[in-house]
This record gives sequence, C-alpha cells and structure tokens, in this order.
Amino acid sequence: MTDPSTREEAVLSAVEARREHVNAAIPEELPVKRPERLYEASRYLLDAGGKRLRPTVLLAVGEALTDVDGLSEDVDYRAFEDLTGEPVDLMAAAVSVEVIQSFTLIHDDIMDDDELRRGVPAVHEKFGLDTAILAGDTLYSKAFEILLETGAPAERSVDALHMLASTCTKICEGQSLDVAFEQRGDVVPEEYMEMIEHKTAVLYAASAAMAGIVLGADEETVDALYGYGLDVGRAFQIQDDVLDLTVPSEKLGKQRGSDLVENKQTLITVHARRHGVDVDSLVETDDVEAVTEAEIDDAVERLHEAGSIEYANQTARDLVEQGKDRLQRLPENDARRLLEDLADYLIEREY
Amino acid sequence: MTDPSTREEAVLSAVEARREHVNAAIPEELPVKRPERLYEASRYLLDAGGKRLRPTVLLAVGEALTDVDGLSEDVDYRAFEDLTGEPVDLMAAAVSVEVIQSFTLIHDDIMDDDELRRGVPAVHEKFGLDTAILAGDTLYSKAFEILLETGAPAERSVDALHMLASTCTKICEGQSLDVAFEQRGDVVPEEYMEMIEHKTAVLYAASAAMAGIVLGADEETVDALYGYGLDVGRAFQIQDDVLDLTVPSEKLGKQRGSDLVENKQTLITVHARRHGVDVDSLVETDDVEAVTEAEIDDAVERLHEAGSIEYANQTARDLVEQGKDRLQRLPENDARRLLEDLADYLIEREY
Repeated sequence: MTDPSTREEAVLSAVEARREHVNAAIPEELPVKRPERLYEASRYLLDAGGKRLRPTVLLAVGEALTDVDGLSEDVDYRAFEDLTGEPVDLMAAAVSVEVIQSFTLIHDDIMDDDELRRGVPAVHEKFGLDTAILAGDTLYSKAFEILLETGAPAERSVDALHMLASTCTKICEGQSLDVAFEQRGDVVPEEYMEMIEHKTAVLYAASAAMAGIVLGADEETVDALYGYGLDVGRAFQIQDDVLDLTVPSEKLGKQRGSDLVENKQTLITVHARRHGVDVDSLVETDDVEAVTEAEIDDAVERLHEAGSIEYANQTARDLVEQGKDRLQRLPENDARRLLEDLADYLIEREY
Repeated sequence: MTDPSTREEAVLSAVEARREHVNAAIPEELPVKRPERLYEASRYLLDAGGKRLRPTVLLAVGEALTDVDGLSEDVDYRAFEDLTGEPVDLMAAAVSVEVIQSFTLIHDDIMDDDELRRGVPAVHEKFGLDTAILAGDTLYSKAFEILLETGAPAERSVDALHMLASTCTKICEGQSLDVAFEQRGDVVPEEYMEMIEHKTAVLYAASAAMAGIVLGADEETVDALYGYGLDVGRAFQIQDDVLDLTVPSEKLGKQRGSDLVENKQTLITVHARRHGVDVDSLVETDDVEAVTEAEIDDAVERLHEAGSIEYANQTARDLVEQGKDRLQRLPENDARRLLEDLADYLIEREY
C-alpha cells in the first residue's frame, strides 16, 4: 500500500498534467471574438482557474478504455484513437463538459447572490446581471457546438449530445430542488440524495460516460462509467458539505459553517434533524459576517454527537467504493488506477 | 390578384390550423413533472399564447418540400414522410424552435426588465428571478432533447443540432449587441442589420432550414431556405420597429413610441440620425408612463420628413421580395404559396 500523501501527490500531478492540455484547448474552442464583452464574460471564470476534474475524468476514462500507455503529455487528445483505431477529438468532448460546468456556475452565482468565485468577483458582479445571464447562455450553446466537433461517427455524436442535453436538464432540476429545499425543514435523506445526484453528480456521470460513447464502447461499459460518475459525484458533493464544517475558514476561502448559517440543506443537517437535533437553532445568527468561530465549534460538536458528520463521511466512503467497483469493466492499467485514486482523493481532500 | 384582406385572412387561417397542431404537441413534449414549479414556470409563456410563426414556417416548408397536398388538419406531422418516403417526427423539430423562442423571451424580459409579456406577467415577475433563469435554462436543454426525437437518420440529426446550437449562440451575440447599442449614438445601418440578423432572423432561418435538413433536402435547398428565413426574419423585426411608432397604443398593447422613449436603436432612428435628425431630443421624456401622444406624433412627423419610416418600410419590402425569390427552389404548391403569403403578411400586418 502506497503512503496516502504520496498517492495524493500522484493524483494531483496526474490531474495537473491533463489540466494543462484542457487549459490550452479552452481558448482554441472559445476564442474571444465580436462581441468581445460577451466572450470576455463567457471566458472569465474559465480563465480564473479550476481543477478541471470533470474533463480529467473524461480524458482518463478515454485512456483507460483504449489502454493508452505512458504519460498524458505524450497523448494527442485531439486525434485520439477510438476503439476501432479511428482518430476522434476527445478533447472537444472534455472541453464541452467544462464549458457546461462554467455556465452553471455563472447562473448559480446569480441565484445564490454569491459575490466571489475562484478568488475573483462572480461574473454578474464583474460584468453586470444582463451580461452574466447572456454569458451563461452563450456557453450553453457553445458546449453543444464544441461537442459536435469530435469527428466521431454520427450515431455516437447523437448519443453524446443526447447525454449532454439530458444532463443539463437534470442539473436545472437539481438546482430547482436545492432552492426549494431552503424553505423546507422536512427534507429526508432520499430527497437530498436525489437533489445532489441531479445538481452535481450527473455532470461527472456524463463526463465518464461520454468518453465511452465517443470512443465507441459498448452499452454495458457506458452504463458502468455513468454509474462510476454518479457515485463519485455524489461523494464529492457530500464531502464538500463536510468540509464546509471542518476546514478552517482561511483554508476554505470562505466562512466555515456558512451552509449552517444560510440554512442550506446538507446530508449532515438532514440526518441531524431526523436524530432530534434542532438544526435551525444550532447557529442563532443568519449573517455570515457576524457568526463566531465558537458558535460554529459548538454546532459541529453537536453534529458530531448526533453522529451526523460520521454518517455523511461513511455515505461518501461507501459511494466511492461502489464507484471504484464499477471500473472493473475497464482494462487494468494506469489510467484506471488514476480513476480509482481520483475517487479516493475526492473524499480524502481537505479543501 | 386576390383581395389583400382576403389573402391576409387566408394566411391567418393557415397559421391557425398549424398552431392547433403545435399547441397540442407542446404539453406532450414538455409535460409538467417534478419539480413542478420549475416546469410550470417553463411552460408559463408557452401556454400564454403566441402565433407560433416559427414552427408554422418549419411545418409549411416541410409540406412544400414533400409536395403534401390538402389541409394541414389531414397531415400527420408526427409521422411525416421525408424525401425518401420514411416517416420522421417533423413536429418535434417544430416544437424545438418554439421552445428556444420561449427561452429567449424569458431571459430577455429579465434583461429588459419587462413586466408584461403576451398579456400576462413576465416569468420573473410571476415566479421570481431564480426560477425564471432556471426555467429558461431548462427550456434550452429540452429544445435539444426534443430535436433529438425526430427519428431522422443520425447524420441529419447532427446537422439539425448543429444548426440549432449555432443559432442559439448567434441569438446571444445579437442580444449582446442590442444591449451595447443602447449606449451608442453612432450605430450605422449595417451594424443594425447585423444585430437583428443575429437577434431575430437566425431563428426564422433555422426554422426553415431545419425542415429541409430533417427531411433530407439537398444542401442548395437548405441554403435557400435559410436565406428565406433570414430575409423574412429581418423584415419582421424592421416592421416591428415601424409598428411601434405607427400603431395606436390600444392596439399595440403597450405605449406607442416606447422604443423612442427608451432610446432603443431601430433602423428608423439609425437612418434619421445619419440624415441630420437629433434623435435623442425627439422625445424629451425618458419615462414611458409620462410621454404624451402629441409628443410621439411630433416625433413621427419628423421621422417621416427625414424619410426614415419610408426607408425602413422599403428595406422590409425589399427583404420580403428577396426572401420570396429564394423559394423558387421549392416545388410550386399550396404550401410554397403560404410561405410567400406569410412573408407578405409579416410586413403588411398592423400589429
């Protein structure tokens, strides 16, 4: 067994190697052209950073499926041999999911009235509401245009487009449930899991599955890949909710416990409420600026006592194990091991 | 030559016959399901009315191309024989363009801060900003999902999706130019024409062309159909700008001359400014509620004297003639005559 910190370093360096490729492809697929302000706003968050986890999953699935050997630096993702040996532009598919992710962030920040994202002003803060709505709308259709450029046979393109379109619909449904849940105190774990499946996990699922579709994998493999993405995507979201409570504010880049202050539903609060914790009065203030570290500490202590944080941790761990199992349909190789390690990393990361 | 008012009645009744079909298909393609509030908001404007001009163009092009005889009531648009005699769901394509149109209206109303649409509150007034953004986003991806259901061969589906995606990108670009033009006093007619081509005409163009693509028409025919849509779509928008000045407020459903009051660029104001009219001081007030009919009358009088209204009328008439000429690639039949009459109607209508 490799030392966990070494393994984490290896995952991060594998992600970084693929991120470089994705970062180079984004301006190629989405050049700033007339009307410049619209395209500058569309590119703003994409250029501000991001781990590119979803495109990395897509590219790594491609490598695992086709048993590509060696470092990703040597792989030409623009002319990537599919399962019949024909070249397809796998990078176009990878960029399309990152572009969709960026569109959802821009519109979500408007809805949540968030002012900061990736350490820079949210797009609506920087460019105004109108341009932010339009920038999101532009990325939306560009993602479909980009996905149409893989050069895969038409049947596969149709399947990939269908997956991307239905994924976007589900993301909207998930965001709508999330907004509705803020007004409700009786959300059950199953409802919460449905919400994060739609809001977060389907784009991981689509990333993994679309690599299979574009490269010509069989239906059972595509289904297994979709399942892997759903599992690790849900684990990722649950871990995000745990980190909001447990990671110091400085490291988190925002106030620790802000979900509690803002009455956001998480698997932790849903569990706690069902185990007798009066979640609404855990933190008295509803102003993120005014809450104290001591208040958050007390709240976290009570959530620990109710077993809610451990329950969330265990749920995320179970999902990751389930997701890794699904990868058994893939050939055993470095890229498959990366997908397994990536799943572990999503719940072991500390921010 | 038929009496114009009889011809207009015939066009309206042909549009209405097809509208009935489209209205029946919308709830089939877009049922209200969980989360209900999201889908109710998504359906709200679609259910509030609309002439369904774009889907009517798409269906009529389909009829003209395949030389379908008889009234549209007898045509099964869900199993419509393509140019090789195979059934395709032409109605799915027709609904997809209406769904895109509805998405753009919802987001445009937010940007323009319009409170009313089709005689009912705008979606953001009725459901709030967050749900309005999400409802538009949901319609966006649903339109692609619906277009994937025509049952046409995969190559045609890919072409149709490419057309719809690039059309949506252009609509965003056009809306962005429109917003930017409000801050500028030096817009030239070519820029204005580019803006309305992107903002309005491309969806008419896509409607006409997509019927050709889905039914398997050759490339020259698809190009001619696209050109027809671009021409009549631009004429439609220019006529809209003329009607804003010339139709009584009661008939218009909003204050006559509101474009002038709100400093919206139109082909009329762009022409007038280049012919020495001080457009900015044509109407002193910038409050639509406070403007008087006499002020608008004076402004219209001066725009007439500068030849600006006649210039806009003539431009629209020329575009309609050019658009009708492009239909010569189609077989001569009732549906082609409907497309010609529809083009005339778009600039002869009085509201």
